[in-house]
Amino acid sequence: MVATSPTPTIKFLKQPTSKAWVELAIANLDTILLDHSHCERKAAGVALNMMFRYPSYNKLVRTLTAIAQEELAHFEQVNQWLDKREIPFSPLGAPPYGSQLSSQVRRQEPERLLDMLLVSGLIEARSHERLGLLADHIEDSELAAFYRGLMASEARHYGAYWVLATTYFETDVVNQRLAELAEFESNLLSELHPHPRVHS
Amino acid sequence: MVATSPTPTIKFLKQPTSKAWVELAIANLDTILLDHSHCERKAAGVALNMMFRYPSYNKLVRTLTAIAQEELAHFEQVNQWLDKREIPFSPLGAPPYGSQLSSQVRRQEPERLLDMLLVSGLIEARSHERLGLLADHIEDSELAAFYRGLMASEARHYGAYWVLATTYFETDVVNQRLAELAEFESNLLSELHPHPRVHS
Repeated sequence: MVATSPTPTIKFLKQPTSKAWVELAIANLDTILLDHSHCERKAAGVALNMMFRYPSYNKLVRTLTAIAQEELAHFEQVNQWLDKREIPFSPLGAPPYGSQLSSQVRRQEPERLLDMLLVSGLIEARSHERLGLLADHIEDSELAAFYRGLMASEARHYGAYWVLATTYFETDVVNQRLAELAEFESNLLSELHPHPRVHS
Repeated sequence: MVATSPTPTIKFLKQPTSKAWVELAIANLDTILLDHSHCERKAAGVALNMMFRYPSYNKLVRTLTAIAQEELAHFEQVNQWLDKREIPFSPLGAPPYGSQLSSQVRRQEPERLLDMLLVSGLIEARSHERLGLLADHIEDSELAAFYRGLMASEARHYGAYWVLATTYFETDVVNQRLAELAEFESNLLSELHPHPRVHS
């Protein structure tokens, strides 16, 4: 696998996405669009679940309300692309990425909260990187522009998760745990999943 | 208990809300506001859960995406009122209303889908009626205007759930099941729950 750049373009990520992923994604763009739709719905679900779990954490609730609203707006936008390209709304098997990352979330509080925020932040950071790669490589200029536009939101989202983590935890503790989880996240993606997915 | 009007003001509802509820709610307005915040978050959660359960139902997914976005917007607006009145974001025990209504949802498909849509529609209809009663009786004119504004959305929501039900089921089947569930819903509220809640 050839890396697309010698260093990660985004400070959250330990390793950049491989060129092999880009090739697989571009060769299976309709599947990626369908998977992306599922990802946006899941991202809204994760934000909402945290709002249910920590209803008294004012700043967390307010930040995640805004994030969930944006994810739902993106979900609708991606669904308009599915309609336009006549891609049916079908279920699609998820890659192991999400469940394996979640397996790293410690079960005890307050570690659980910290890990959930950082895992969500890492997923947003990886999405930001990969939507950017799609924007760079998609031939349809309108679709490429759409992906370019989404990148800014994803960057705001991982920034917001980072700010929440440092709101409730000491920065040193956050940085140390982020380093561990980021290492795990990059290792997960070091072997390409055989099916084209946003996080394969 | 004295009924607020001799006939239900909203066709979904078999019985109107009692005057006793209005008195309890107005006398405990801060608790009602906090409960209302939880209700908006739960309504967004219910819509999102249905989107996860029926990902291939295009019209359902698109309609519920819009509803979930609106519920989140209301959630944020109610939370601004909590801040303004210095009401802490606290957990609050839910009244039996939601769980008892959900117990009426049949477990087999396609009945499950029909029942979930109608139960959600009934909750929105009752919310519409009760937010209207709050708007009529709250002394703070700004807060009353806020509740008056929310009523329109709630009415659109129960209309949308009704349209979805008749999209996937015959109108006769929908009407018959709605009559049964509406009877159950009104009976649930015939005895006032001792704690002030939106659906007590």
